[in-house]
Amino acid sequence: MISIKMQEQVQNSSVIRAMFEEGKRLAKIYGAENVFDFSLGNPNAKPPQEVKTAILEVLESDNLMSIHGYMNNSGYEDVRDAIAKSINDKFGTAFTQNNILMTVGAAGGLNVIFKTLLNPKDEVITFAPFFGEYRNYVKNYEGELVIVSPNTVDFQPNLEEFKEKVTPKTKAVIINSPNNPTGVIYSEETIIKLSEILREKQKEFGTDIYLVSDEPYRELAYDSAQVPYLSKYYANTIIGYSFSKSLSLPGERIGYLVISDQAADCENIIAAANIANRILGFVNAPSLFQRVVAKCLDAKVDLDTYNRNRELLYNALVAYGYQCIKPEGAFYLFVKTPIENDVEFCNLAKQKNILIVSGAAFGCPGYVRIAYCVAYRTIENALPGFKALIEEVQ
Amino acid sequence: MISIKMQEQVQNSSVIRAMFEEGKRLAKIYGAENVFDFSLGNPNAKPPQEVKTAILEVLESDNLMSIHGYMNNSGYEDVRDAIAKSINDKFGTAFTQNNILMTVGAAGGLNVIFKTLLNPKDEVITFAPFFGEYRNYVKNYEGELVIVSPNTVDFQPNLEEFKEKVTPKTKAVIINSPNNPTGVIYSEETIIKLSEILREKQKEFGTDIYLVSDEPYRELAYDSAQVPYLSKYYANTIIGYSFSKSLSLPGERIGYLVISDQAADCENIIAAANIANRILGFVNAPSLFQRVVAKCLDAKVDLDTYNRNRELLYNALVAYGYQCIKPEGAFYLFVKTPIENDVEFCNLAKQKNILIVSGAAFGCPGYVRIAYCVAYRTIENALPGFKALIEEVQ
Repeated sequence: MISIKMQEQVQNSSVIRAMFEEGKRLAKIYGAENVFDFSLGNPNAKPPQEVKTAILEVLESDNLMSIHGYMNNSGYEDVRDAIAKSINDKFGTAFTQNNILMTVGAAGGLNVIFKTLLNPKDEVITFAPFFGEYRNYVKNYEGELVIVSPNTVDFQPNLEEFKEKVTPKTKAVIINSPNNPTGVIYSEETIIKLSEILREKQKEFGTDIYLVSDEPYRELAYDSAQVPYLSKYYANTIIGYSFSKSLSLPGERIGYLVISDQAADCENIIAAANIANRILGFVNAPSLFQRVVAKCLDAKVDLDTYNRNRELLYNALVAYGYQCIKPEGAFYLFVKTPIENDVEFCNLAKQKNILIVSGAAFGCPGYVRIAYCVAYRTIENALPGFKALIEEVQ
Repeated sequence: MISIKMQEQVQNSSVIRAMFEEGKRLAKIYGAENVFDFSLGNPNAKPPQEVKTAILEVLESDNLMSIHGYMNNSGYEDVRDAIAKSINDKFGTAFTQNNILMTVGAAGGLNVIFKTLLNPKDEVITFAPFFGEYRNYVKNYEGELVIVSPNTVDFQPNLEEFKEKVTPKTKAVIINSPNNPTGVIYSEETIIKLSEILREKQKEFGTDIYLVSDEPYRELAYDSAQVPYLSKYYANTIIGYSFSKSLSLPGERIGYLVISDQAADCENIIAAANIANRILGFVNAPSLFQRVVAKCLDAKVDLDTYNRNRELLYNALVAYGYQCIKPEGAFYLFVKTPIENDVEFCNLAKQKNILIVSGAAFGCPGYVRIAYCVAYRTIENALPGFKALIEEVQ
């Protein structure tokens, strides 16, 4: 009785659910503290104190209707104004509230922008490895996701192959840096080259190609690594931001889109995105948290929580003989599996009560993603298992 | 550059935006207090005190991660459990948390359920007058909205015409009671007959037809009027609820779906709706407000705020000679225009600084919707204008 498209989805997701159930089963047998779940990108750093303070401040403002009521579908004007100013201060841009659309997280924002842009069969290019949900977000609007194969040397995008895959049907390119699942930050050199290719191809085909930058991990960059701000390099840029990781508020569903005045047809895109936000059923980003994040634009989770995990896990795995790029951002390690079959390796890991995700889910078989947004102790306790794993298969 | 579908949307919405701009223009000339905006269904009753108390209580709980973090896409288990119990207590049903899916308002819930159910060209029937957004929600998933013409005698659904419009392609029927825009509550007699027709047609065609009940106004029923609980009358019922009006929290985007175990293929529907919530980009209903509403299931806005408005406006308009059903619920009056052309009547009203919406927007020309969720004083001050209007055209 459910739609044909959703029948496939239920089929696929039962694999993930099986893993989830397996985790619960293992926890019952061995105790939750002896099961090491590195499968989910669920932030474990506490929201900064500023968040609670901001909630209380907003609640003390006397007008309850303006806290919990409807506003424009694009969000409160003062909130959008504060966000535009904050971006301008940080990156030397010149946005106004008109360029900002408050969204239900980055996932909501990406759906809004694909609804706005895509005609059936339009192509959206992404670089493997990539966040698997892009498949769904593009398919929701009958677009086609075109995947550029991974460059496993340093996990910067494979620009040679990209150049060949841009066609007159390419409507958008979606990138994610710091990257899920690799933790790699796309370098300024990459961004400059990528922008040049896009400009060339736009000229060649007489089209506009939008660069959609999915940036939930922007604030999670270690050792003062810089994450280039895309709109400075390429005019047709649309940025999808989320406070899920920067403020550890993933459940609150709060983020925004930045639609630059430099982007072709920007006035229609802004108007249409606003309508898409409404008709897709988001209506508006949650109102209290719009006001809360506007008060927390300079706040950030304690990066050290993640950095300590990164150092511990990366150094240990490399010492055991695993091959892995040291991530500059996000909270994932993307590790080459010591046997060829990454799905089989995940199963072997499960026998050690270690739950990790196969690279195939991200368009990059032969690797596994280890989400290290977990307690430090969980990593310490899992290390003997990781060590035994590689010893057994070698 | 925006998609063809969205080009149409931008075109249509510019009419609404023009009205909004007109309202702002009038406010500048005559002062905001002399412009009477009855165009929006934006609740003006304050959220009950329980809401703020609940927010503070939740914030005092020591685990910030469980307040703002991810949970299952369907929502917190304890919240869904509390909601199921509350429904069971009120309506004698037997739901469990398994039947409840927390959503980003009712709009999010309706999109989730149509994504779950509809194949391209599937038909969804609704009864005019109806909430105009249903057109978009159905079109988002390539379904066809089939409209049963209005019964302007008492605005109960036109069941004779309905019977003829059910076909083998009918996948769902969507109803909204108390109704936007009429304020009418569909009677128990209506619901019983509607259910009988659906059962007959299911048998005739060998299909399943889902009855989707959109219930944001359930708690806004005056004079102790009863709003039948649909799942008790028809097995294939799916209910979309929202706290937007009952707790005056429209900006917070919090509601839920009830998917009954009695519904055909319910297990797959529940699994698929869960996935649809994720892949459409909602991911989950806002987390803090899940916990807040679970603490406010017996709270409600002060209905008297709306009831006083209803009495004042209804009695005055009828005294002036307007024809109108006295609404039993919601916060709208649906008034027959004293001239045939309702769009023209809206323009005449605008000349008196009164902003109202033409019935054509709800599939019912010849009428206007007056949203009386405004200050009592606004109604008092607008009454001379309403009086002058009917005198001038008669």
